[in-house]
Amino acid sequence: MALDAIQALTFDVFGTVVDWRNSVAREITETCRPHGITLDADQFARDWRALYQPSMQRIRSGEREFVKLDVLHRENLEELLPRYGLEVLSEAERNHLNRAWHRLDPWPDVVEGLNRLKRRYILATLSNGNIAIMVNMARRAGLPWDAVLGSEVARGFKPQPHVYRTAAECLGVETSNCLMVAAHNGDLVAAAETGMRTAFVARPMEYGVDQSVDFEAEHEFDVDCKSFIELADALGC
Amino acid sequence: MALDAIQALTFDVFGTVVDWRNSVAREITETCRPHGITLDADQFARDWRALYQPSMQRIRSGEREFVKLDVLHRENLEELLPRYGLEVLSEAERNHLNRAWHRLDPWPDVVEGLNRLKRRYILATLSNGNIAIMVNMARRAGLPWDAVLGSEVARGFKPQPHVYRTAAECLGVETSNCLMVAAHNGDLVAAAETGMRTAFVARPMEYGVDQSVDFEAEHEFDVDCKSFIELADALGC
Repeated sequence: MALDAIQALTFDVFGTVVDWRNSVAREITETCRPHGITLDADQFARDWRALYQPSMQRIRSGEREFVKLDVLHRENLEELLPRYGLEVLSEAERNHLNRAWHRLDPWPDVVEGLNRLKRRYILATLSNGNIAIMVNMARRAGLPWDAVLGSEVARGFKPQPHVYRTAAECLGVETSNCLMVAAHNGDLVAAAETGMRTAFVARPMEYGVDQSVDFEAEHEFDVDCKSFIELADALGC
Repeated sequence: MALDAIQALTFDVFGTVVDWRNSVAREITETCRPHGITLDADQFARDWRALYQPSMQRIRSGEREFVKLDVLHRENLEELLPRYGLEVLSEAERNHLNRAWHRLDPWPDVVEGLNRLKRRYILATLSNGNIAIMVNMARRAGLPWDAVLGSEVARGFKPQPHVYRTAAECLGVETSNCLMVAAHNGDLVAAAETGMRTAFVARPMEYGVDQSVDFEAEHEFDVDCKSFIELADALGC
């Protein structure tokens, strides 16, 4: 494994760095409590997330102008609330709930792993989330990013190739000097097509009962591991 | 002083956070030493910097497409080298020297001040430098930015108003929730015109013998101080 040329690590965030499912479930439960409403919070989180890819796809295809993920999350939330009989939620509650995506908890291995990796490598987010989501999440969780490259910078969404290329260019390195870290085979395949090196980190609990793919690496990635600690070990950090 | 609404601090970098003049002078001296060349390194640093504003102005005016500051620095370096009889420098030496702007030292009060301010506020660069300059500088000097908003994000250069507005939008706040921190009156006046609050930090040694302006605040800014320690004091951090 010749990873000597790696200078920067770029990270998928939702699912790879943070456990969005349990975090969003916690938040919807808290939002509903004052109303005396109980619901299947895990299902709610998975249903909200399920609207994510289709909403980005309209922008990738050119059908719609670029808007940031905060906007898509809010639209998707409005679609979801009636399904759960949650029209009662106020504007302030909806806004607060939409920002649940700014308050996601990292997987338990993340902070230690990132701090080890940071000693040697530039660490940057390469997420479809916008910059504010990444900044607020990092401040709350103590994620030591050197750069937060949200989708605003490339005005697009992965797996569009220009999103990966723009990230490398912003960091001042070639794509071949970047290691893309993700829990999703498709993200890594797209990154590899732009010349990036690849590290698969298995997160088999990401989607809970809905998980049907990405239990393991399905391609020859440069690193195949199960945590950011193992990633730091693999890179000799 | 009603600064209760402030959520994010956005920082000018060259001159305000880092002492470019002494840092670049150190670097050109080191580059010349193996060649047995001595020169007025302070003058060289000031001459290089003097080409900065005119080179950005061609982009602001629309005469030229956006390119990042690393490119402008290199072009300006090529213009400067013959004036100092430095055509002898190799391509590798020129590249290394151009990246002197990635290795600038902060003023002595900066790291302590930023760490105090970070407890309460989002800290972001709002510089005409590109992201890679800011990232490499921060890693070397230990600058705890939450976000590095280089000129790539807005594809423009201060004092163009859209550069300030884009920074606030990326951070997910209104311009009125941002405090722009700079050692330059013009930068703060432009920021205020977009609705930002303003903090002047005097850096009277920035230009050395060439300094002719910005010895003190020339307008009614929200904060007027002499260091990032005083800024943290003024904000009660």
